[in-house]
Amino acid sequence: MGKREASRRDQALAVMNEAGLDGYLIENPVNVSYLTGFRGDDSLLWIGDAGFCLLSDTRFEEQIKEECPDVAALIRHSGQTTRDLLKIAVSDVRFSSSRPRRIGFESATTTVAYLDSLRKNLPDVEFVGRFQDVERLRSIKDEDEIVAIQNAIDVSTDAYRDVRGWIGADANEVDIRDELEYRMRKRGGDDVSFPSIIAFDERAALPHAIPTRGGRYGDAKMVLIDWGAKKDDYVGDLTRSFLTERGLSDLQTAYRKKFQEVFKIVLEAHDKAIAAIKPGVPCCDIDKIARDTIRDAGYGDYFGHGLGHGIGRVVHDFGGFSPSASSLIMKNMIVTVEPGIYLPGWGGIRIEDDVLVTETGSKVLSKRLSVDE
Amino acid sequence: MGKREASRRDQALAVMNEAGLDGYLIENPVNVSYLTGFRGDDSLLWIGDAGFCLLSDTRFEEQIKEECPDVAALIRHSGQTTRDLLKIAVSDVRFSSSRPRRIGFESATTTVAYLDSLRKNLPDVEFVGRFQDVERLRSIKDEDEIVAIQNAIDVSTDAYRDVRGWIGADANEVDIRDELEYRMRKRGGDDVSFPSIIAFDERAALPHAIPTRGGRYGDAKMVLIDWGAKKDDYVGDLTRSFLTERGLSDLQTAYRKKFQEVFKIVLEAHDKAIAAIKPGVPCCDIDKIARDTIRDAGYGDYFGHGLGHGIGRVVHDFGGFSPSASSLIMKNMIVTVEPGIYLPGWGGIRIEDDVLVTETGSKVLSKRLSVDE
Repeated sequence: MGKREASRRDQALAVMNEAGLDGYLIENPVNVSYLTGFRGDDSLLWIGDAGFCLLSDTRFEEQIKEECPDVAALIRHSGQTTRDLLKIAVSDVRFSSSRPRRIGFESATTTVAYLDSLRKNLPDVEFVGRFQDVERLRSIKDEDEIVAIQNAIDVSTDAYRDVRGWIGADANEVDIRDELEYRMRKRGGDDVSFPSIIAFDERAALPHAIPTRGGRYGDAKMVLIDWGAKKDDYVGDLTRSFLTERGLSDLQTAYRKKFQEVFKIVLEAHDKAIAAIKPGVPCCDIDKIARDTIRDAGYGDYFGHGLGHGIGRVVHDFGGFSPSASSLIMKNMIVTVEPGIYLPGWGGIRIEDDVLVTETGSKVLSKRLSVDE
Repeated sequence: MGKREASRRDQALAVMNEAGLDGYLIENPVNVSYLTGFRGDDSLLWIGDAGFCLLSDTRFEEQIKEECPDVAALIRHSGQTTRDLLKIAVSDVRFSSSRPRRIGFESATTTVAYLDSLRKNLPDVEFVGRFQDVERLRSIKDEDEIVAIQNAIDVSTDAYRDVRGWIGADANEVDIRDELEYRMRKRGGDDVSFPSIIAFDERAALPHAIPTRGGRYGDAKMVLIDWGAKKDDYVGDLTRSFLTERGLSDLQTAYRKKFQEVFKIVLEAHDKAIAAIKPGVPCCDIDKIARDTIRDAGYGDYFGHGLGHGIGRVVHDFGGFSPSASSLIMKNMIVTVEPGIYLPGWGGIRIEDDVLVTETGSKVLSKRLSVDE
C-alpha cells in the first residue's frame, strides 16, 4: 500500500499549506501509521515543505526500512530525545526548504507537557494547534480500507457463530470472552478491536460491563455481546443481544415478552436510523431518528450514549452520530449504528451494526449476521 | 480495596495542598482507577479541598455504584459535557469549600485541545500543569499491589511453560502468540499486558517485532518471546530468548556458539544490574552497569533502548533505568531489567525479569522461570 500512503501524505501536506504552516508534527501513532505504513509506536512524522521524515529510535530502525522504505527516517541514539531529532529535521533541506516559523501540531493528541518541551527546544517557532486534521482524512475510506474493514467484520462474525455453537451451561462471562477472542484469532484476526463485553442479565444494563466469573450461562436469561476483530490494521465492532435457552423457556414467559418488546423498539430505532443514512445529512439527524423512536416508545431515559461512531484503524474513530454532531455524513465513511435500552436491575439490549455510506444511501457491512442471531 | 483507595486519595490531596492548589482534575484513567477503584474510562476525578467526585456519564452510573460506592459521582446526561460537570463540581460545597482559583491538571495526560476547552469553560480559573504526581505515587507499591503483580507474573510464567511444551514444527509466530495469549487467560489472567512479541531469527533483531505468519518454528534457529499477563489490574512483563531444536542441532555449531556467546553477555549485564539495585542508588547508575558490560564485550552499538521501566497498572509505568534517569531507586518500586543485544540480519537476545526493590536490595519476582528456560 506504499502508493496509498504517499497520496495520504500529499493530502496532509495540502492541509498544512492551506493552514499557512511551514511544518507539521504528527504525533498520534495511528496517524503516523496511516500516513507512512510504519506500525511501531513512539515515533513521530515530520512534514516539512520539502519532504517527510520519521523521527524514531533504534528499536524501530529495521522495522521502518521494512514497512516504509520510501520514507526517510532520523534515528535517535542513547541520550538523544525525539525533540533533538525535530531540531535536526527542521534544519535539513531534504525536509524543510527554509527554517520553519509556524509549525502545526495535533492538539487532540499532544499533551500540554510535550508542547512545553517542544517550545523550549525551538523557542523561535510558533507552534499552532490543529484539531484532528488527519483523523478527518482517515474518516473517508478508500477501497482497500473498505475491504479491510469488511474482512475484520467477517472474522468477527465467523468467530461469533463459532462461539454461539460452543457455549455450554457452565460457561461464565469470562469463559465466553476468552473463547470468542481466541476464535477471532483462529479465524484470521490479528487482535481484538477492544476488550469484549459479555454481560448476562442485569449486568447488560452496564453498557460497558467488564466480564466476570460470577454467573453461569445456564442460569442467565439473556446475554449481550459487544465484540470485534482487528485484521490488517482495521477493526469491526458489533453487538448482539439474545435470550438464552432459559430465557426462552416456558417458565419465563413474562421475561421473554419484556425482552421481545424492548428488542423490537431497539431494532426499529436501528433500522430507521440506517434507512436515513446518506451523504449530506447532518449526523445529529440520524441520532435523533433513533432517539425519538426510543423516546416515543417510553424508554427515552434508558438510552444514554450516542447512536454510533466512526470505525477504521481504531474502534472509536472520528465522526459518528450523537445529538451534538452537526457535521454532514459523507460518502465512504464507515460508522456503527448501535441504539440500546438499558434497564437497571433487569438487563440491556443493544443492536450494533457497521454501515458504509454509499453514493445514494448505505450498505450494512455486517449483514452476514442477522440482528437476532 | 476501598481503604487503600481512600488513603491514596488523601495522598493526592496532600500533594495538591503542598502545591498551593485548591483543586486538582485527574484525567488519566489509570490514575482515576488507582484513586477510586472505578475501572471504566471517559471519567475524571475532581479533587476539591472539601471532597472527591467522579465526573462520568450514564454508561458508568451503575458501575460506579458497584466499584466505588464511597466516592460521589456527577453524571452527565445527553447534551452535557464533562466540562459542564466540572463547572458544577467547583460550585458544590460538598467538594469545594469556596470557588477554586488555581486548579491543577495532569500535564502529561491532558491534551492542548482539552486544556483550551477547560479554560474557555472556566475563564476565571488559573489552570496549573502538574507532571505525573499520581504516577509518582503509583510507583511505590503497597502489599496488595506486590501480591497482584506477583500473581500476574506467575500467570505469565505458567502460560509460557504451557506453550513451550505445545510448540510444534509447523507453528508460526502468530500461532505461538495466539496460543500464549489464550493460555494466559486460561491460567487466570484477565488480559495481556501488551501485544506479545514472538520473533524468529533475524526478526528478533527488531526489539518490537510484530508476529507474522511467515516462518515456521521448525525452520527457525532461535526465538525471542516478550509477553505478560494482566490480572486484577496489574501486569507482568518478561522476555526469554532461546535456541530451537534446529538451532541446537549439530549442523548449527557456529550459530549456536554465537548465540551462546551473546546470551552470556546479556545475562551478565542482567545479573550485574540486578545485583546493584537497592534503595538510594540513582537509576541511571543501574543502566550504566548493564550498558558498560555490553559495551566492554564489543556490542555497545547493539543495545539501543533503556535497561528497564516501572511496571504496575500499565506495562510502561513511571520510573525505571535509562542513561538520563537521575532519580533515586526507592523501596517497593517494581521495575523490569531487560538488557538486549540486537544484530541486524542475525537475531536478537533479550532477557527480562521483574524486580521488586526491597529494604536492602532487590527480589526477582519472576524467579520461578529460569533465565535460560
